[in-house]
Amino acid sequence: MKQETIDRIRAFSEDRDWDQFHSPENLAKSIVIEAAELLECFQWSGTEYDAEHVKEELADVMVYTQNLLDKLGLDPDEIVNKKMDQNERKYPIEKAKGSAAKYDQL
Amino acid sequence: MKQETIDRIRAFSEDRDWDQFHSPENLAKSIVIEAAELLECFQWSGTEYDAEHVKEELADVMVYTQNLLDKLGLDPDEIVNKKMDQNERKYPIEKAKGSAAKYDQL
Amino acid sequence: MKQETIDRIRAFSEDRDWDQFHSPENLAKSIVIEAAELLECFQWSGTEYDAEHVKEELADVMVYTQNLLDKLGLDPDEIVNKKMDQNERKYPIEKAKGSAAKYDQL
Amino acid sequence: MKQETIDRIRAFSEDRDWDQFHSPENLAKSIVIEAAELLECFQWSGTEYDAEHVKEELADVMVYTQNLLDKLGLDPDEIVNKKMDQNERKYPIEKAKGSAAKYDQL
Repeated sequence: MKQETIDRIRAFSEDRDWDQFHSPENLAKSIVIEAAELLECFQWSGTEYDAEHVKEELADVMVYTQNLLDKLGLDPDEIVNKKMDQNERKYPIEKAKGSAAKYDQL
Repeated sequence: MKQETIDRIRAFSEDRDWDQFHSPENLAKSIVIEAAELLECFQWSGTEYDAEHVKEELADVMVYTQNLLDKLGLDPDEIVNKKMDQNERKYPIEKAKGSAAKYDQL
Repeated sequence: MKQETIDRIRAFSEDRDWDQFHSPENLAKSIVIEAAELLECFQWSGTEYDAEHVKEELADVMVYTQNLLDKLGLDPDEIVNKKMDQNERKYPIEKAKGSAAKYDQL
Repeated sequence: MKQETIDRIRAFSEDRDWDQFHSPENLAKSIVIEAAELLECFQWSGTEYDAEHVKEELADVMVYTQNLLDKLGLDPDEIVNKKMDQNERKYPIEKAKGSAAKYDQL
């Protein structure tokens, strides 16, 4: 996301004095709640879904994710790259290619 | 996220031929699964949690979110700004300030 | 579930002094965490899944559901029948038959 | 739940021809979706919540749980008792008493 989008997310909460509700725990709850609303778009079918609704729910996940990054003072690139280091070790290309198996079953 | 982090996420899947598993539905499932693992860090306490574990699970949410954006060809700034337009209408500052109530109960 | 199974679930928590952790909120988190582990059995395929693993995760959902019923002093038949009253009104047979649409789109 | 409540849940789906939508995967999605709606009752507070809403969402979890038991032909007492056998082994009373730690950290 661009800096101005991030700034808008931050201003939205600040203007409403919502930082008091944004404990890490509450934001973790919020992310899973929105992720389940996203999943609801695909509850009965993986192929027929309301594309606009998907965008809205995915955006909600992203907003709360940004709130949690902010709350914990995390750098998104740092935590994602660190996790990708792990993923690359857990799923070596020669073993994982074309397989949906979990790393402990490769 | 920086472009190079996004590129790394994309290359990771491409190198493993995982695009075949990345239907929008499967990615929506994956986001909620990882979001619940994030929530598990706060299952019994909102204040005592493993900060490293939180980072890993949050990163997983972000990786699958990026996968879904890619799969659907979505621009993150566009969908988040559109949702923020809605949020700002649903939660006018003068009504929502300091309140955790849902918009239909403001 | 039979009374003796319910009694076993209760004794398990009592013997471990876990009632202190079983706030309604923590149990709600626990149900969603276990439900997501159940979903993980179907993360990449709806047809190839580990049936034993499904049973274990479904059982976990049922155990935490019983814990929450107990914590809130709820009668399962009462709350389910009340909800079924609502469901039957929201989804009249003649409209809902053969349709996966949500009630507000019938 | 009493047999008549279970029968009511079954008749509700049969009358609407909904068995076609009730794949194990779709039901697993449905359980997590309803579990997240239950969690939403506690999104911003663990102590101030709408008790009626909690009952409705918990009932939804129970209805889809029954649907999945039926779909897979599972006996609830059997799978719960088997899981309790595991839980009792993983969490011996003398180690787990009064602790919220996960079994691998006891």
